[in-house]
Amino acid sequence: MEISGSQFIGRISVSGNDHSFYAYDAATGDQLAVAFSEATAEEVDQASKLAEQAFASYANKSNEEKATFLERIADEILNLGDALIERCMQETALPEGRLKGERGRTMNQLKLFAKVVREGSWVDARIDTAQPNREPLPKADIRQVVRPLGPVAVFGASNFPLAFSVAGGDTASALAAGCPVIVKGHPAHPGTSELVARAILVAAEATGMPDGVFSMVQGTTHEVGIALVQHPLIKAVGFTGSFKGGKALFDLANQREEPIPVYAEMGSSNPLFILPEAMKNNGPAIAKAFSGSVTLGVGQFCTNPGLVFLPKQEETDGFKSELAAAIEPISAGNMLTSGIRDAYSAGTESLTRKEIEILATGAKAEGANAVPAKIFYASYEKFASDKTLEKEVFGPSSVLVEVSDAKQVMEAAQNLEGHLTATIHGTPKDLEDYAALISILERKVGRIIINGYPTGVEVCDSMVHGGPYPATTAPQTTSVGTNAIKRFGRPVCYQSFPNRLLPDAIKDENPLQIWRLVDGAFTKDSIR
Amino acid sequence: MEISGSQFIGRISVSGNDHSFYAYDAATGDQLAVAFSEATAEEVDQASKLAEQAFASYANKSNEEKATFLERIADEILNLGDALIERCMQETALPEGRLKGERGRTMNQLKLFAKVVREGSWVDARIDTAQPNREPLPKADIRQVVRPLGPVAVFGASNFPLAFSVAGGDTASALAAGCPVIVKGHPAHPGTSELVARAILVAAEATGMPDGVFSMVQGTTHEVGIALVQHPLIKAVGFTGSFKGGKALFDLANQREEPIPVYAEMGSSNPLFILPEAMKNNGPAIAKAFSGSVTLGVGQFCTNPGLVFLPKQEETDGFKSELAAAIEPISAGNMLTSGIRDAYSAGTESLTRKEIEILATGAKAEGANAVPAKIFYASYEKFASDKTLEKEVFGPSSVLVEVSDAKQVMEAAQNLEGHLTATIHGTPKDLEDYAALISILERKVGRIIINGYPTGVEVCDSMVHGGPYPATTAPQTTSVGTNAIKRFGRPVCYQSFPNRLLPDAIKDENPLQIWRLVDGAFTKDSIR
Repeated sequence: MEISGSQFIGRISVSGNDHSFYAYDAATGDQLAVAFSEATAEEVDQASKLAEQAFASYANKSNEEKATFLERIADEILNLGDALIERCMQETALPEGRLKGERGRTMNQLKLFAKVVREGSWVDARIDTAQPNREPLPKADIRQVVRPLGPVAVFGASNFPLAFSVAGGDTASALAAGCPVIVKGHPAHPGTSELVARAILVAAEATGMPDGVFSMVQGTTHEVGIALVQHPLIKAVGFTGSFKGGKALFDLANQREEPIPVYAEMGSSNPLFILPEAMKNNGPAIAKAFSGSVTLGVGQFCTNPGLVFLPKQEETDGFKSELAAAIEPISAGNMLTSGIRDAYSAGTESLTRKEIEILATGAKAEGANAVPAKIFYASYEKFASDKTLEKEVFGPSSVLVEVSDAKQVMEAAQNLEGHLTATIHGTPKDLEDYAALISILERKVGRIIINGYPTGVEVCDSMVHGGPYPATTAPQTTSVGTNAIKRFGRPVCYQSFPNRLLPDAIKDENPLQIWRLVDGAFTKDSIR
Repeated sequence: MEISGSQFIGRISVSGNDHSFYAYDAATGDQLAVAFSEATAEEVDQASKLAEQAFASYANKSNEEKATFLERIADEILNLGDALIERCMQETALPEGRLKGERGRTMNQLKLFAKVVREGSWVDARIDTAQPNREPLPKADIRQVVRPLGPVAVFGASNFPLAFSVAGGDTASALAAGCPVIVKGHPAHPGTSELVARAILVAAEATGMPDGVFSMVQGTTHEVGIALVQHPLIKAVGFTGSFKGGKALFDLANQREEPIPVYAEMGSSNPLFILPEAMKNNGPAIAKAFSGSVTLGVGQFCTNPGLVFLPKQEETDGFKSELAAAIEPISAGNMLTSGIRDAYSAGTESLTRKEIEILATGAKAEGANAVPAKIFYASYEKFASDKTLEKEVFGPSSVLVEVSDAKQVMEAAQNLEGHLTATIHGTPKDLEDYAALISILERKVGRIIINGYPTGVEVCDSMVHGGPYPATTAPQTTSVGTNAIKRFGRPVCYQSFPNRLLPDAIKDENPLQIWRLVDGAFTKDSIR
């Protein structure tokens, strides 16, 4: 399939206008051939109106129809074949194996949400039947079910060009909830975005979805994104990216005449705690595995472990030498864009300063956007007096901080800001001794990992990929896993409705055969 | 029990400082004897720190302990006896019967949340068991459960001095979720607030709850509320009141270094649609019942029907005369405060203008804050060109708007802003003919009522007392009904945890015997 530099206003492919931009080969820095047009505010308006037009029809498609649509998107992405992988490799410098894995993950996410929609119980159906003879006042029949919010704007991320981009988790969960989606493609991989958008549109047409259920605009400037978030017909925003970007969208959305929710996942430095006995028994093995986690995918993961607390004890020196020895030969590789490379260089350079030691620097790699891994070391006193050490430097770097005792560990944890994850390495005895650490971290992060690594975010019912601000702007939600669908719905209550006018989910006969809370009890039974 | 003009910083009663204010008899306008002290920013800070201190202990109380605490609060409120009702009557001018009913409702809310906590399944426990042999990558054991957010600030409302005030729905649901609460008492009923706060503190002490689980500050100035919402230890805000007040808190909370959720229910004008056949068959009966709904409690309900769409047809004139005849003899009574009375007078006066007819004025009542009901009438053209006609005038007033046909009804509905409720009066034929109206209203309101009245908000599992902005700042939540508890929790994910370190809700053996989603299926079974 040829790349034509297109955006899609519903089914209409739009290419060529006054302003255009180019994709770059992330490994060589070369500009690629085809020009992509920058969306105008007018195109954003058209896409929004089309999405609103599609809403009623799409929201009322049966669960089976929506599930089939989602599954068909997965199939059509696979049908793009090697062309997708090749283009994506070129635009992102990510290796083939990783991208094939990510394509699988993207398809699995779509299929998982199809399963959630087909099963149907996510809508939190609740029924309180009438009690006409209740004293002192009769009780009316009252029912509730979650209904879709309306058109959703999704901002593709650069670091997962498939799984968190055009057909990624935000798009899949919004479509699953019954909301039309307008994606703002990430300018780092516009060709990949175009191909995936085509796959979605083929799937929409093949499964009878209304025009406007999906649109994608492209652009490098902030104006497109601003127009999208400010558009009165847009009812929610999904975003994965930088703190600066997510916070700007959050503020814009709150300043609208009608504020709307922004689900921005803005990364974090994902503190990792190594406890004393684990360090003693297992230090070298943790050092080795950690070197892999911090350099995986050139460190370009929201869950990259960028902050490590080490106990002050004899074996910690060994850990540090092991880690340095493991990091130094690793060629981390090319980053996604020259902008991300520059930010990484600036971030690691700013850490190269007084009272911060460079423990290890990775090997140089070939390529335009290649960067070396960097491991820094600071005393607890330095860390405690300098909040910038807690901030994420996006890429293969991490800051080690030595803590003298349990009290200092607790203090460090207590002073953390919000993060996506925290990880604890500890023996059973360590975990007993540091039980209070878990209680502290429960209030600081979305996910706590014991004796593992935060990279690798499983897509499942129980995943929380979220966490307190500033990791996200919506700490009560997750952007990965089946609960992500709940972000795009709102409960609506129906009082004294004739059965036939109720949504299927709350009709007497339970035609969808879903779990419901009926007069206080969970059941799949019909009423009466 | 004597009223001493107190606030409560945890168990410590604080009265008397540099600034004080007084309560007023709402029927006579007389100042009541005891002075109440205005909270200082320092007292807000003390209460917040105490709440944070109490958090860990309170959050980890067993479900049974929390349920017992809530039930005990209900008992202690009843134990206040007639003193509570008498003081509340004096401060609000609400009649004894209403306040005894409201006390029952307040107690029932507390008991309902006790039931929810004791049953325990609200925490959305989810478990995905490990698959160590999965290809290409093993799957870790991942579990999630909702954990309480932290200290919550609750702003008591004036119009429900018991059910939406110190021990109202926000306090009950936040305590049920495991969050300590600091109430900012409404200055219109400080004596009532003091009594109820004492009841909560007696219950807390009797059931072994930590000091700081509950505090109440009082005050008439904005400063107390601002200090509370800006305090870094406060993690969420519950509010019921005016749009201006709620929006100000929402903006403040979003401007914090760490933004926090504000659950503000800000009222609305609750449009009511009378469809043609219903008007024809049933106009006079609807007029009669409507006159009761709009004047109930001097119209001081968030769900008061302040906007009515009437079909342009012969019977509508009859409806209007019936309504006028029903309204004119009604003495609506004294409003809650002189400020609310003045706002009502100003609101109804501003409607007394060109192209708006006064259809009926209620009888005058005795008393300092007495106001007459007012029913206005405007053409659809006037309504469509003047957005102020859709705005709530808090009190016993309503605007009738005549619409010429179904198209105009749909247009009127489509152009509505967010409201708490919408009501449709229709025969089976009407409801068939106007099916599209329901689809439109599903996106405009939190609750749709067929052939009833919006006043009377049932406290149950299925209730949604919420709705799109500007009715609330959190359209995905409800402030009444059991789902209100979800506002005060956040999911936390536990990866590869030893069973004994997990919260009880997600331990293998399911010690709480709650419903859980285990490997994709709802069950109460234990693992393995």
